[in-house]
Amino acid sequence: MSVRIGIIGAGVMGADHAKIFAEDVGGAELRLIVDADPARARALASRYGAVSGTDPEALIARSDIDAVLIASPDFTHAPLVLACLKAGKTVLCEKPLSPLSAECLAVMAAEEAGGVQRVQLGFMRRFDQSYQEMRVALRDGLIGRAVMMHNFHRNVENPAADFTADMAITNSAPHEFDVARFVLGTDYLAVTAFSPRLESGKVGPVVMVLETSGGQVVTIEVNNNAAYGYDVRGELVGEEGAVSLASPLHSRIDRGLQQVTPYAADWRPRFAGAYRRQNRAFVDFVRSGAFPADGASAWDGYAASVIAEAGVTALKEGRRVVVGMIPQPEFYRKRTD
Amino acid sequence: MSVRIGIIGAGVMGADHAKIFAEDVGGAELRLIVDADPARARALASRYGAVSGTDPEALIARSDIDAVLIASPDFTHAPLVLACLKAGKTVLCEKPLSPLSAECLAVMAAEEAGGVQRVQLGFMRRFDQSYQEMRVALRDGLIGRAVMMHNFHRNVENPAADFTADMAITNSAPHEFDVARFVLGTDYLAVTAFSPRLESGKVGPVVMVLETSGGQVVTIEVNNNAAYGYDVRGELVGEEGAVSLASPLHSRIDRGLQQVTPYAADWRPRFAGAYRRQNRAFVDFVRSGAFPADGASAWDGYAASVIAEAGVTALKEGRRVVVGMIPQPEFYRKRTD
Amino acid sequence: MSVRIGIIGAGVMGADHAKIFAEDVGGAELRLIVDADPARARALASRYGAVSGTDPEALIARSDIDAVLIASPDFTHAPLVLACLKAGKTVLCEKPLSPLSAECLAVMAAEEAGGVQRVQLGFMRRFDQSYQEMRVALRDGLIGRAVMMHNFHRNVENPAADFTADMAITNSAPHEFDVARFVLGTDYLAVTAFSPRLESGKVGPVVMVLETSGGQVVTIEVNNNAAYGYDVRGELVGEEGAVSLASPLHSRIDRGLQQVTPYAADWRPRFAGAYRRQNRAFVDFVRSGAFPADGASAWDGYAASVIAEAGVTALKEGRRVVVGMIPQPEFYRKRTD
Amino acid sequence: MSVRIGIIGAGVMGADHAKIFAEDVGGAELRLIVDADPARARALASRYGAVSGTDPEALIARSDIDAVLIASPDFTHAPLVLACLKAGKTVLCEKPLSPLSAECLAVMAAEEAGGVQRVQLGFMRRFDQSYQEMRVALRDGLIGRAVMMHNFHRNVENPAADFTADMAITNSAPHEFDVARFVLGTDYLAVTAFSPRLESGKVGPVVMVLETSGGQVVTIEVNNNAAYGYDVRGELVGEEGAVSLASPLHSRIDRGLQQVTPYAADWRPRFAGAYRRQNRAFVDFVRSGAFPADGASAWDGYAASVIAEAGVTALKEGRRVVVGMIPQPEFYRKRTD
Repeated sequence: MSVRIGIIGAGVMGADHAKIFAEDVGGAELRLIVDADPARARALASRYGAVSGTDPEALIARSDIDAVLIASPDFTHAPLVLACLKAGKTVLCEKPLSPLSAECLAVMAAEEAGGVQRVQLGFMRRFDQSYQEMRVALRDGLIGRAVMMHNFHRNVENPAADFTADMAITNSAPHEFDVARFVLGTDYLAVTAFSPRLESGKVGPVVMVLETSGGQVVTIEVNNNAAYGYDVRGELVGEEGAVSLASPLHSRIDRGLQQVTPYAADWRPRFAGAYRRQNRAFVDFVRSGAFPADGASAWDGYAASVIAEAGVTALKEGRRVVVGMIPQPEFYRKRTD
Repeated sequence: MSVRIGIIGAGVMGADHAKIFAEDVGGAELRLIVDADPARARALASRYGAVSGTDPEALIARSDIDAVLIASPDFTHAPLVLACLKAGKTVLCEKPLSPLSAECLAVMAAEEAGGVQRVQLGFMRRFDQSYQEMRVALRDGLIGRAVMMHNFHRNVENPAADFTADMAITNSAPHEFDVARFVLGTDYLAVTAFSPRLESGKVGPVVMVLETSGGQVVTIEVNNNAAYGYDVRGELVGEEGAVSLASPLHSRIDRGLQQVTPYAADWRPRFAGAYRRQNRAFVDFVRSGAFPADGASAWDGYAASVIAEAGVTALKEGRRVVVGMIPQPEFYRKRTD
Repeated sequence: MSVRIGIIGAGVMGADHAKIFAEDVGGAELRLIVDADPARARALASRYGAVSGTDPEALIARSDIDAVLIASPDFTHAPLVLACLKAGKTVLCEKPLSPLSAECLAVMAAEEAGGVQRVQLGFMRRFDQSYQEMRVALRDGLIGRAVMMHNFHRNVENPAADFTADMAITNSAPHEFDVARFVLGTDYLAVTAFSPRLESGKVGPVVMVLETSGGQVVTIEVNNNAAYGYDVRGELVGEEGAVSLASPLHSRIDRGLQQVTPYAADWRPRFAGAYRRQNRAFVDFVRSGAFPADGASAWDGYAASVIAEAGVTALKEGRRVVVGMIPQPEFYRKRTD
Repeated sequence: MSVRIGIIGAGVMGADHAKIFAEDVGGAELRLIVDADPARARALASRYGAVSGTDPEALIARSDIDAVLIASPDFTHAPLVLACLKAGKTVLCEKPLSPLSAECLAVMAAEEAGGVQRVQLGFMRRFDQSYQEMRVALRDGLIGRAVMMHNFHRNVENPAADFTADMAITNSAPHEFDVARFVLGTDYLAVTAFSPRLESGKVGPVVMVLETSGGQVVTIEVNNNAAYGYDVRGELVGEEGAVSLASPLHSRIDRGLQQVTPYAADWRPRFAGAYRRQNRAFVDFVRSGAFPADGASAWDGYAASVIAEAGVTALKEGRRVVVGMIPQPEFYRKRTD
């Protein structure tokens, strides 16, 4: 039996997820796509033989939908996830779970009240082969105990006209916040932030230094106007060695006294495989009820929001800010036995 | 409507294809798997909720099967493809179409008699992103007119105990023969072959130099006992530049005074994406009836067999051998209008 | 006429410099080598047909010595440079000029009193081809205005048994402090420092974030126990692009399912060319009297000491420390007209 | 005592050697430069404080010249080397020793008659770090016994207007012929040659396949109009692994959706270190009388000429040509005891 899927939001991310569920993973059936803009929903749905609509609540309520993908605007995420939980639907929600950590706590409370995990968060980098290999190298003892992790996130330019310096931390950095937690298996204690000046007047980069409960130092550069290309780098430094991400390249051109390899203009080529594996894991999650081993939970969404809030304060006030997280609920502990 | 697929052969390749159709492409339904060994067929089928059997002819005859994947021993390929054509089934056949060019001609005749292309051959490298980028670079004029292509195919060791030097040419080289034709868009006129001596007594490498109808020189090294890893390299040299394949890497480890990246032990990690895209294209082919733009046809299978036969003679007799191909039938010309 | 050179200190650095002056640059004549240990001085001198001694003051006083290379212990640097200035000898002093910024000021005062620059400091990275290319890329506008510079300095292990965390900043980091100033052409305003915990009990890495007078953010990781190899990395990020150092590699080995390139055990292979070019520039300096265009002066030595002092405080007190430098004296301004 | 050097030929190569002897190696004194063009000789000599002239015979005869560097036109090499031998002068001769193998034999006879080796040939790649590391990897058993060597030599364009296809083999390929012999330690038995067609009408590439006395296959591509840059590649394949040359890179630029590293326009940046080490070894040779361990002798010059002659025939006649070398004279055997 195929898993019957409904998608909320027919923008860039919704369209990518629709394609993946329709073409790139087996065992899924794309049934319904809703969007506030009916024409946009219709155009996307028709491409994959699905039905379209405009009402997310109605989608969540339908009995012929097994699982929901949320790719609507950030502020709608938490309310829609709560609606899914109420309706007993398994949900894959694009990050962030909520920009507000308080809302994340509300989702966690509702999920725990239901007694079973139903919320997977779209931190797809956990499914990227590079980070997976980094994590395996650490686990297998190839580099000794983890000491530092350096992360660089670079976009060609601002995703939108009203982008602010805060959003570099609340919108772009969460992927880094989460994947460093995923790789290291520790939480953050404090954050300090620095921001160089751009003469172009664009939103400049932010350099953050995070201290973890494991005694590690994590650096994160978020550079939304790096100009030269979409580029994500990372290095995990251990007491006996180091492991670095490599961006997969497929060919190289030699011409005009130059050796050239291309950068992508956005994140999609770099993380296409990660999205595919994430959504594959989600389909298996819906089928089996077992939360994906590498999946991000509501707890991980909460952790990212708390750190982002502290980061914004650190940048604004020019000081080291201690991160105040609640202790991890038993409900969200991974059972490793 | 999902495409209903039957697989003939439950060995390594059959199992890989089963996984792809069941998990990694949408719109396909894996119905039936047959193998001479009933236990092997059953084990594989049960993994994906499919039915098992032992009779390929019966599979081909079933009305609830839309398309057939052939991954049985090489000598069975041509007869099974002919049976598929007779039954009006679209078929994706693992390479080679046949080790004998005469058998390939028989398949071509039968297909043309049916009036419509139904046979796709499993030269999956055509769907590999590296070769695709190489071809685009040539087409877009980035390197000028093609002059040479250098190809290196290396395995850790012999695939089987009874492997012979001839098989390096008939079994391993066809991927190189085909993909160079695919990239260059020309055919082969002549082949010369050289073989260095191994002291280990294992089957040694073969170095072939091919001359094309376009005036290009193509070199191919097939090294089935390269020991160090599975490694495929290629470079296309044009009058104004060159483009090289890059093997996608995902991470790098620094330890013990070394910087290390891994080689795979076999072809699967390197070409996983190519197989997935090839099978995705096959599902679309079955649905639409339109032969895949980048797919290998029976004609391509014939071309590879003719060249392999000439290569074996060249190696045995230590001389330049002229390749004797029939002219390309109109039926197999790509319509580019 | 060859430049007649005397070397003070016959340890590792002194021996390297002796070899360079004797074998790897033209126009120099190695005359005299002194060391507190007469046997060590004699062994080194005899290798190159030079005379040996134990008294640095006598060496500086000799009329048949045109120029002095100081490679004795750090605390002797400033007094010996002062002696050279008094004797009118041109001097290439290994870094640091002094661990104490106050002593650096004394050297600057003495040099300026003499009316002519005679002191070159051994910040050899300025002559490294990688940093030179980085600087040229910035100057030529290839990456736009400089925004950030990331620097990583890693050794296999502590240079000495009594190495302390402070020494990571005062002994290893100065190369990074200086070369970032050299590349950016700006000075430091403030420094913050972080130190992850090592379980091995060894001296752990230090991560520093420096803010410059040009509005840039400079990060420096000094990791004296990186274990995996000697490794120096750097990246300069501009508003329109970025330029990264590449460690020159000469060959690569494929074996045992791995692709391997070596790391050196210490700094010498990486910076052999830089030392050679630096000493070549010094010989030209002695001949012509014109201070080398890319050379480090006493002023640069002072700058490095001031920043190191601030870095030690920042690490100790866990806070952002403002750097207090005197304004650059007119005497040390590069004349670019 | 410095070695007093005279240079014959003040063209591109003579100027490079003059700079090296004057600035980049110790223990040499550049005394005299002669060239048929007196103005060119004077200009070069004055740059380094040397004397100039026009008569090579007079230079060779002078008693205040210890050693001679020959960088005059190819056809003058053998006669000038013979003159040096007659005058008892040690000589470093740019390749080729002679385009005619018969002339090489005459030089060998004269040198052996003198009883002591005095002729070093300018196959500088033997001193390149990449080839040295390749050779060490082989010697240390890291890749098992050598099986194949692949060599690629690419120039931006023809060195001169009257360049012919034969000259690709007689002028450019000798570096490859020699360095493969140096790395493998074997001689050539036979050569086959292929040449793709260029539409530009320029001299096209030549692909040669050489068979060695050790049972190895060596491929050489000489591409004098590769357009994209000066590029030398090489790979040595053994029974247990492989070692590849890496072209040393110093920096990398990221801009405009591209990651870019530069190619040089000619050979000088790539082999600057090799020339320096070669000339350093020559100075030591003059001083000590001991022929350099890695140096190329008159015998090596003869070997390169014989192979080039066979390669020209192979290309012209489109057939495998057996190489006819005399046995190696005892005089030219390396004493390894």
